[in-house]
Amino acid sequence: MELSLKGFRDLLPADMIARDRMVALIKEVYESYGFVPIATPALEYKRVLLAYSDATAELTRDEFDRLLLEFPQARAVLLPLLREENGIIRIRVSDLSVQQQTALGSACLERIVSRVMADKQVYLFQEPEGHTVGLRFDLTVPLSRFVADHPELPRPFKRYQFQPVWRYDKPDPGRFREFSQFDIDTVGSDSLLADTEIIAAMHECLTRLGLNYRIRYSSRKLLNGLLAYAGIAAERAHALFRVIDKLEKQGLDNVKKELGPGRIDASGDPIPGLHLHEEQIARIIRFLSISESTRVATLATLNTLFQGVDAASEGLRELEEIHHYLEAMGIPDSQVVIDPTIARGLDYYTGPIFEAILIDEQLGSFGSVMGGGRYDRLIGKFLGEEIPATGASIGVDRLLSALQKIGSVPARPSTAEVLVTIMDRERLMDYQRIATELRAAGIKTELYMGKEKGLGKQLKYADLQMIPVAVICGSDEFAAGQVSIKDLRAMRAEPEIKDRGEWVKKKVGQVTVSRATMVGEIRSMLA
Amino acid sequence: MELSLKGFRDLLPADMIARDRMVALIKEVYESYGFVPIATPALEYKRVLLAYSDATAELTRDEFDRLLLEFPQARAVLLPLLREENGIIRIRVSDLSVQQQTALGSACLERIVSRVMADKQVYLFQEPEGHTVGLRFDLTVPLSRFVADHPELPRPFKRYQFQPVWRYDKPDPGRFREFSQFDIDTVGSDSLLADTEIIAAMHECLTRLGLNYRIRYSSRKLLNGLLAYAGIAAERAHALFRVIDKLEKQGLDNVKKELGPGRIDASGDPIPGLHLHEEQIARIIRFLSISESTRVATLATLNTLFQGVDAASEGLRELEEIHHYLEAMGIPDSQVVIDPTIARGLDYYTGPIFEAILIDEQLGSFGSVMGGGRYDRLIGKFLGEEIPATGASIGVDRLLSALQKIGSVPARPSTAEVLVTIMDRERLMDYQRIATELRAAGIKTELYMGKEKGLGKQLKYADLQMIPVAVICGSDEFAAGQVSIKDLRAMRAEPEIKDRGEWVKKKVGQVTVSRATMVGEIRSMLA
Repeated sequence: MELSLKGFRDLLPADMIARDRMVALIKEVYESYGFVPIATPALEYKRVLLAYSDATAELTRDEFDRLLLEFPQARAVLLPLLREENGIIRIRVSDLSVQQQTALGSACLERIVSRVMADKQVYLFQEPEGHTVGLRFDLTVPLSRFVADHPELPRPFKRYQFQPVWRYDKPDPGRFREFSQFDIDTVGSDSLLADTEIIAAMHECLTRLGLNYRIRYSSRKLLNGLLAYAGIAAERAHALFRVIDKLEKQGLDNVKKELGPGRIDASGDPIPGLHLHEEQIARIIRFLSISESTRVATLATLNTLFQGVDAASEGLRELEEIHHYLEAMGIPDSQVVIDPTIARGLDYYTGPIFEAILIDEQLGSFGSVMGGGRYDRLIGKFLGEEIPATGASIGVDRLLSALQKIGSVPARPSTAEVLVTIMDRERLMDYQRIATELRAAGIKTELYMGKEKGLGKQLKYADLQMIPVAVICGSDEFAAGQVSIKDLRAMRAEPEIKDRGEWVKKKVGQVTVSRATMVGEIRSMLA
Repeated sequence: MELSLKGFRDLLPADMIARDRMVALIKEVYESYGFVPIATPALEYKRVLLAYSDATAELTRDEFDRLLLEFPQARAVLLPLLREENGIIRIRVSDLSVQQQTALGSACLERIVSRVMADKQVYLFQEPEGHTVGLRFDLTVPLSRFVADHPELPRPFKRYQFQPVWRYDKPDPGRFREFSQFDIDTVGSDSLLADTEIIAAMHECLTRLGLNYRIRYSSRKLLNGLLAYAGIAAERAHALFRVIDKLEKQGLDNVKKELGPGRIDASGDPIPGLHLHEEQIARIIRFLSISESTRVATLATLNTLFQGVDAASEGLRELEEIHHYLEAMGIPDSQVVIDPTIARGLDYYTGPIFEAILIDEQLGSFGSVMGGGRYDRLIGKFLGEEIPATGASIGVDRLLSALQKIGSVPARPSTAEVLVTIMDRERLMDYQRIATELRAAGIKTELYMGKEKGLGKQLKYADLQMIPVAVICGSDEFAAGQVSIKDLRAMRAEPEIKDRGEWVKKKVGQVTVSRATMVGEIRSMLA
């Protein structure tokens, strides 16, 4: 009988201990830059969750007429917006301004949104009071709602948020329907200092986590320059960016084909092409082939390439300004590079974009572990004003799995340092006293509470949890005012001792000391 | 236009900072006893969530016949269990053993559970693949599922878990539909050492949080003694425990009435009584009136009261054994007492029960902030075996609100220590260098990135976030190789200075030092 849901997973102690360690470090870094924590509810109204999507309500003419009968105020608002086709009336939710939404009222809006064929990725349901609600699928839409609900917040408002999100994706190995994000955003600053700071803190996190990485940045405005340079219409921009995004995975040849006639992928499926002209493709390839070893050299090459392309100048200025700020912070070329080939899939970015990839032989091509950019037209949506914002999202689960693979986080299922074993069930209080004394000295100490009476099995329990030290105290020790202390790592260190019984009998890694010196002895054993 | 759901709330930075501090301390204490962290998914199958409830599926005869046609294996399993009344067939989900559930298969079980009129408190919905799932409403049912799914775990398994739960309650002021629990449990130990440890760690948490509190413990087995002593049938036990639970809120007189004929409450509603005999009521009241100042005295009084009542002896032994263990750990009578009047509402407790209440004039009668007990017949349900367990749940939100009221957690909306203000927009990189230097020295430093150009408004931004120190550097300072450092707490400390302009002009709390000594000066200002 299957007990847990497909696509979901438990986090076991070893994972949690490692994750807590990692997240604490990330928090510490972002707090050192003045970011503050917030949390938002798991559930939001469907109309909030879908406010930024292409979500379109579909009503029959009959349903629409009944809507207007019930909500007469809707006529003036909706008539200019709706599209009718084959008797189906379509209203795009994101076309409704805040003023229009307020004019409609929440009951009417709720009705319209209930007719949205929702994004299949969002877990939606009706709560008993009749509202359609859903589990958040990211931390950006909730931030936008949060900013609207709390006008008292300072501006700029710099938040971090570490919470799970839910997506009804096809579950794959390593891909879950519930996963955690760590998001960092500066809301209300249009300064490139803010973008730089997100990058700088990201750099500091990855360094302190002991990873080899490269952070790459570019700007959507530079890509606008590319559109002008290659003569590509604005409405094809997003399709182009999606193809560019594939560069790392698919390679230049495949990208070239997708810019032209298309290609057949490994599984035999046809991938349609953008059908650009030869000269357009050549220019894009020239842009994508830029590869210099320093930020200054990349800037120089870009300047040459884009000579006379006015649309590129704003983007170039952004890349250069960020470069200067990075210089002032002492962040080297080797770790933060300008990479014109990054595009970032989401269509809401408006300025600098950035992502971090891990470079480690043990990891292979691991891809991006954090990414983000500036999105100046999103956060203010619910307020009906434009509020600049920039930020990044850290894929906590991916980053953790990288750290676990290279062994730079603890892989222990317990943080306990000592197990006090029970030799004599008549003296439980004496064992308690030992454990209490150790804890008072700041040593994490577990008192054995299981059913096993034998020392071997109790030590096996400690070993299973990788507790490094055991305290052993039988009637001899009690009589002599002593305790025995056993270093449980000793057996693992001496591979010739295979048998636990022998290990116990031979007292490997074991010393007997006076009770008065117990704390000091254990401290030096742990050190 | 309402953007956030009724009964839900955002956590603002000041709350989050305080909560993180509090939770870190609780984690530290429980880890020092060897407890390890886990996390489970927000969503569970409905059949898992309802496995412990009174949930009953209701099918018409016709639906039932179709079920048997589709799942022939169901006949043998269900026929002995069902109850038919007025053509409606009822099957209690918790009556199905693990073996029976496996025999039915998950498709059949899913169908039966879909006909359960669910507990109104659980957020249930159908996911697109057709399974009925729900948001967890506690952390105990998921623990039971977790233990069944991970047979490799050590026994005893001592976990802590800090996650939100969701309940579709009527929202009240201070009562939310999403709230966080911190649960601690020892699974697989029947030793009273385990119960004692939960109490001891609870005591340590509350002490270290700076609270005045009392932890009260008793045992369900002692209450079984009361049933025998007062001559009350076992099937009325739970009704009696519910009345006893009201003692603190309603007082002895009202409890007396509810044991007898019932009473009319403040709103005029009748509360039915248990209609016990006078002598039964007298005995219960005698028991509830026990009030001694030490654990030893309470034990003596209970021993006298229950002389000759065999059913009480096991409970008395439990209370006494825990008392001895508490003694060994040095936990005084003043903070952990035996209180025969606690009953704890949930019906799954089987042994010791305990709860912590806060005692503080500022808080008034604040009630219980953590509580729990032993529940030996619950955790093994999904495995079809009996696994002893004991644990407690901390009401994180209630505890936090108490700490905030008495001021023993930080009430600051930011952890930043310094704001570097921007006087000269041509020298942004110089300000960055100052901020980078401070951060490198371990001082949490925010660089101002807002639109305000005036010093007064930038200092207001710092003040709003309660950042204690500002660095001010204009052309004079830059020219002289100096920085000015302003203690922003100075204005608040000098009430006669009301005007921010005057405060800026008079340079209150401000010193100008050489750039080389900046870090040291700021450190001593913060100290």
